[in-house]
Amino acid sequence: AVTIFGIVDMRLSHIKNSGAPAFNGVSHSGIGPSRWGLRGTEDLGGGLYAGFHLEAQIKPDTGESNTTYWNRQATVRLGSRSLGELRLGRDVVPSYRITTQYDPFTANGIGSNINILSAGPNPNHAPAALRIKTFNQASNAIGYFLPGEAKEYGLSGQLMFAPGEGGTADKYSGAYLEWKHQGFSVGGHFAQIDPATGGSIVKYTTKGIAAAYQFSTGTKLMAMIQDERSKRSTAVPYEERWWQIGAVQNVGAGDIRLSFVRRNATGTVKESANDATLWAVGYVHRLSKRTAVYTMYAKLDNKGAGTTFLPNGAQSIAPGGNSAGLDFGIHHKF
Amino acid sequence: AVTIFGIVDMRLSHIKNSGAPAFNGVSHSGIGPSRWGLRGTEDLGGGLYAGFHLEAQIKPDTGESNTTYWNRQATVRLGSRSLGELRLGRDVVPSYRITTQYDPFTANGIGSNINILSAGPNPNHAPAALRIKTFNQASNAIGYFLPGEAKEYGLSGQLMFAPGEGGTADKYSGAYLEWKHQGFSVGGHFAQIDPATGGSIVKYTTKGIAAAYQFSTGTKLMAMIQDERSKRSTAVPYEERWWQIGAVQNVGAGDIRLSFVRRNATGTVKESANDATLWAVGYVHRLSKRTAVYTMYAKLDNKGAGTTFLPNGAQSIAPGGNSAGLDFGIHHKF
Amino acid sequence: AVTIFGIVDMRLSHIKNSGAPAFNGVSHSGIGPSRWGLRGTEDLGGGLYAGFHLEAQIKPDTGESNTTYWNRQATVRLGSRSLGELRLGRDVVPSYRITTQYDPFTANGIGSNINILSAGPNPNHAPAALRIKTFNQASNAIGYFLPGEAKEYGLSGQLMFAPGEGGTADKYSGAYLEWKHQGFSVGGHFAQIDPATGGSIVKYTTKGIAAAYQFSTGTKLMAMIQDERSKRSTAVPYEERWWQIGAVQNVGAGDIRLSFVRRNATGTVKESANDATLWAVGYVHRLSKRTAVYTMYAKLDNKGAGTTFLPNGAQSIAPGGNSAGLDFGIHHKF
Repeated sequence: AVTIFGIVDMRLSHIKNSGAPAFNGVSHSGIGPSRWGLRGTEDLGGGLYAGFHLEAQIKPDTGESNTTYWNRQATVRLGSRSLGELRLGRDVVPSYRITTQYDPFTANGIGSNINILSAGPNPNHAPAALRIKTFNQASNAIGYFLPGEAKEYGLSGQLMFAPGEGGTADKYSGAYLEWKHQGFSVGGHFAQIDPATGGSIVKYTTKGIAAAYQFSTGTKLMAMIQDERSKRSTAVPYEERWWQIGAVQNVGAGDIRLSFVRRNATGTVKESANDATLWAVGYVHRLSKRTAVYTMYAKLDNKGAGTTFLPNGAQSIAPGGNSAGLDFGIHHKF
Repeated sequence: AVTIFGIVDMRLSHIKNSGAPAFNGVSHSGIGPSRWGLRGTEDLGGGLYAGFHLEAQIKPDTGESNTTYWNRQATVRLGSRSLGELRLGRDVVPSYRITTQYDPFTANGIGSNINILSAGPNPNHAPAALRIKTFNQASNAIGYFLPGEAKEYGLSGQLMFAPGEGGTADKYSGAYLEWKHQGFSVGGHFAQIDPATGGSIVKYTTKGIAAAYQFSTGTKLMAMIQDERSKRSTAVPYEERWWQIGAVQNVGAGDIRLSFVRRNATGTVKESANDATLWAVGYVHRLSKRTAVYTMYAKLDNKGAGTTFLPNGAQSIAPGGNSAGLDFGIHHKF
Repeated sequence: AVTIFGIVDMRLSHIKNSGAPAFNGVSHSGIGPSRWGLRGTEDLGGGLYAGFHLEAQIKPDTGESNTTYWNRQATVRLGSRSLGELRLGRDVVPSYRITTQYDPFTANGIGSNINILSAGPNPNHAPAALRIKTFNQASNAIGYFLPGEAKEYGLSGQLMFAPGEGGTADKYSGAYLEWKHQGFSVGGHFAQIDPATGGSIVKYTTKGIAAAYQFSTGTKLMAMIQDERSKRSTAVPYEERWWQIGAVQNVGAGDIRLSFVRRNATGTVKESANDATLWAVGYVHRLSKRTAVYTMYAKLDNKGAGTTFLPNGAQSIAPGGNSAGLDFGIHHKF
């Protein structure tokens, strides 16, 4: 009844930031998050089911786990095929489900859209104005998922409320809704976050829409636009819009992935130094359903005096410079 | 040969302490400890067996594990069906086996007897005079268990010696013995703990007795009395007696649980401010052998200027005030 | 496809160092490393395979895991039966594979050869001049292993390069080669380590050779010699040679293990105070393929003013004194 699952994904990586020494080394999780977990579903009869999901990050380059061991997910759920699912625990937030799904690189590795997004978990995401803790997952979450029967109409969706609890956890309220019909899919999300601690962020909102179309020729095109707004205690709100266009082309046992992402500071304050673009191209060659080898190139360009750079390389960059990366990796699922 | 096992138990919780803001949020482990583990037994022939047990706490509300990863148990054992079992490693102490087993709430959640016991792992247990590290588990333990054949006579028991080793671990010596006959069971335990570090506790003893009777009507009644004595370096010994009466009533697919616990400071110093009572009522509805939903109400009353409160809510209370909690939860075993 | 594996090994231990109080307590991993892990291999067809290996230390005496959770191994590999295997991640270094394999005690417990080796992970290994982080495992490693087909000629070997990455990890480059023919085997290794941080060690090299012969009478003899050289920033290089002779005698369901290890400071500076010898004798009685009980005695003698001592006992010793240990343990594999 218990399934053990996971991924070990390792890559040889070259990263070069303007004005900083090149990095040549070993990194992880180029096309998928290295992890392990336990999960299971129990049929309770009458269309009811119960289940659990525990998922822990692995950093196989150093053997480390996350400080929060089950950081990727720790939930129990009770569901009905016709009424939907109640889920309690630490879970992936609705917004992030859209952000990953409409990125040709599924928000992994050097081509990931979150590499230039100011919000997010990596310290190299400038500026701090959008840094929130619930970008990927939220603790103490109460979730509702549309039932399996809604999928017959192409619909899936999630409502999440994480009350924050006055501690160090952010308070999160958000939802996503997605509709799929034949090769077409469209999804939208909205979330409001009240950071728990008295940092510079008072209230944070994110909203976005994304669409994709799978051609019968093996080409999939996708596009996404997302707005981030951070109300700050000591300054006018910081507003950022980012959009991405992507493509995945099936070629036999592999696929070619292309992505272009652009981030713009908008609103009352144009912190234009923070604008940036990222384009990336990759090729993933599947040796089996579980194993793939891949190569990838990504280039991040800062505008003005921006200092965003790709993760895992040097931790500095010349203002307005660029950051380029080249990866060769092995991805293995179990 | 290896069994993966575990529990994910999550609850929506309302906790209100006198003079403190109400807590409304998500907590875990309302009727059972959230955890995962690996265990196995090997038949060596001739009535001999070997085995191991590794068990780790999970806090699914935040995804955290315990700082001591396998804090719940990490043991190897060698046993004989007729001579008994030798067990080495970190293990549950004998006293705690009785404390949990004769509590209708099995020492879990807001109704747990240990919520008003001064000894124990939670910081809200006042006073510090009884706070020991080996309340639930002891490290470096050598254990002996009565053999499987003794169970034919209704007997089970454990001797434990944990030498402490001069480090930060408490030195523990204790035992429990339990006898079951038809619906009746009675158990007693005794333990002496020598805290490792030069805190205020010099020597700590705990002893208790408990009994239960399972009526054929589906009612189970249980009662327990326990004495704690803490010899202190800078003060006269602190003595505490606590007793509990409980009932579990089977009603179809569910059971109703009732408990009343009272804690009294006794002996030469009557630190009566620490006296407290706790009563609790709960209903557990089983959806299957592995899955249940539950609701529970508990009320803790402090006497004098006592400041004990239920766990997981506000971390303060008006002296002599009360702490009340209401839970709705999902419990899933794997 | 996923295999769960592990060991829980616990022992009752008496350790006495000259001039320090005796230790009598519970320790772990007397004849094998307590651990758990997940591993799997996938056949990709055409002689190709992929796989992963995750392995975590367990300290069952206290229930703790290692701070680096998957400290023993976290790798993904892609291999060909005829061309060899590429392995990426945190892995065991080539030198350590020889060091463990030609020690009758496989570098575990009180008889382990690494108990007197100055390099290594234990704080009781004097002097600090040889203390490196990549003695057992290296992070960020790129490994190449000789193919399965080479084993038909008795050959196995590993090349490893761990680029260090400018962080806190040591930079490791090394290899081992081993040849087996009938009962005979011989292995050699060489490694150079560039410590990452500006400690006293500038460059460290280790090289060694070992051989063993398995007699048809059930006796296995083994011998090993190893040279360690540490170039220091503030002093002349520290040089150490250590050698070991060992024997394993099969006696029915058990085996008797004997070892003698000698460590000599050599080279330009004779830090002779650091010289030491260790001899050990043990008996391992197998109750099954997975379970064994054992007893072991080891004695470590310091020369001059040496202060090396056996692990897990008192953390001090009279200069030039000796450290003796006696163990009784249970070893269980799953």
